[in-house]
Amino acid sequence: MSNAAGLRKAVVLVSGGLDSATALYFAKKKGFSCHCLVFDYGQRHVREINAARNVARRAGCPVTILKISLPWKGSSLIDRRRPIPGAAQPQGRVVRAIPDTYVPARNIIFLSFALSYAEAIGARAIFIGANSIDYSGYPDCRPRFYRAFGAVIAQGTRAGVEKKSIKVYTPLLELTKEQIIKLGTLLGVPYELTWSCYKGGGKPCGVCDSCRLRAKGFRQAGMEDPSLR
Amino acid sequence: MSNAAGLRKAVVLVSGGLDSATALYFAKKKGFSCHCLVFDYGQRHVREINAARNVARRAGCPVTILKISLPWKGSSLIDRRRPIPGAAQPQGRVVRAIPDTYVPARNIIFLSFALSYAEAIGARAIFIGANSIDYSGYPDCRPRFYRAFGAVIAQGTRAGVEKKSIKVYTPLLELTKEQIIKLGTLLGVPYELTWSCYKGGGKPCGVCDSCRLRAKGFRQAGMEDPSLR
Repeated sequence: MSNAAGLRKAVVLVSGGLDSATALYFAKKKGFSCHCLVFDYGQRHVREINAARNVARRAGCPVTILKISLPWKGSSLIDRRRPIPGAAQPQGRVVRAIPDTYVPARNIIFLSFALSYAEAIGARAIFIGANSIDYSGYPDCRPRFYRAFGAVIAQGTRAGVEKKSIKVYTPLLELTKEQIIKLGTLLGVPYELTWSCYKGGGKPCGVCDSCRLRAKGFRQAGMEDPSLR
Repeated sequence: MSNAAGLRKAVVLVSGGLDSATALYFAKKKGFSCHCLVFDYGQRHVREINAARNVARRAGCPVTILKISLPWKGSSLIDRRRPIPGAAQPQGRVVRAIPDTYVPARNIIFLSFALSYAEAIGARAIFIGANSIDYSGYPDCRPRFYRAFGAVIAQGTRAGVEKKSIKVYTPLLELTKEQIIKLGTLLGVPYELTWSCYKGGGKPCGVCDSCRLRAKGFRQAGMEDPSLR
């Protein structure tokens, strides 16, 4: 279904990090009218949510912030009693073990809400900035997960049954962080508004997995990280 | 993972209706230590949530009530501006069209949370009282949807990757309402505590799809519905 301007609608999951910001600008470039969906799921800090809101607003897109509760926690990302792991993995190496920052079924929950939203507004596309190259080893960032989720959409929704299926686009899935940053720079992504650090605080910790992957990306792209200026 | 008493843990989705109550008592009978999960998702009335809480308490199981927001609505079940359909479908006939009470991606969202909960507490089982025989024609109540969701668990969770996969049990999927009620009666399900009507009010409307399916089930089982006493 298209909006008043004839643009196709898409729901875009926006986290405040650089990947989802790039996915949003990619979707816009592809001609989608984007509806941003942001989750407040008990992250350790609100910086991430503010960053997500700011990125969506800069892109000129409506943004919905949903508060969800995961009282069972099960991840250091949302449980203040568990420390955020530091540089436990050697830098530069692809991380294989699933770290303690993995939030049980997080992307499945996020995609389910995005799917509900897309079905309700007649969007046929969902964008998510998942990445399986320079990533933390989360199972819900792998191509095979997205293929499986596609089957759930086809079998478990009205849109799927009525053959108006909704597609999950993962444009960054097989890109390195360097490639993502170069692509985003071409697309005009306001990286200065994004926030990647797993911890809160005034500035990124520089030690957590997410900070290290981001720093590596900017270094390899030969660029300065504008959020550190 | 087992609890202190050596019982295997399960997460059970409890809605307040008779199907999920039967699924809960079935899981208990199978020897699971059940953790009930109830959603407050903007249903038209709180009767359903109160019924779910009462059923879980009667079963002696811990219950978590999660409030989730679906601001895009897209269903007469959660949008007060849309009427609940009445007896639009001829009684006794299997309903094929997807009615307006379908909530976009609802069971996918519910299962995603149940999956997160199960992973966090080390449960290897999720029970849901979905039924594809005497049902309203929802796509997320069909066997093929549950098969597809199984693949998502295998590919998108830590449990799946580590080959400790979590299984979704749908013990009522292929039973008629009559068979469900007879099974539940044997299991001691307190049907007097359950609530099926899509509308609120002091007593069930008797007209909505859910009321009609329930009434048909009790009639065919040759029993009086204890909630109408």
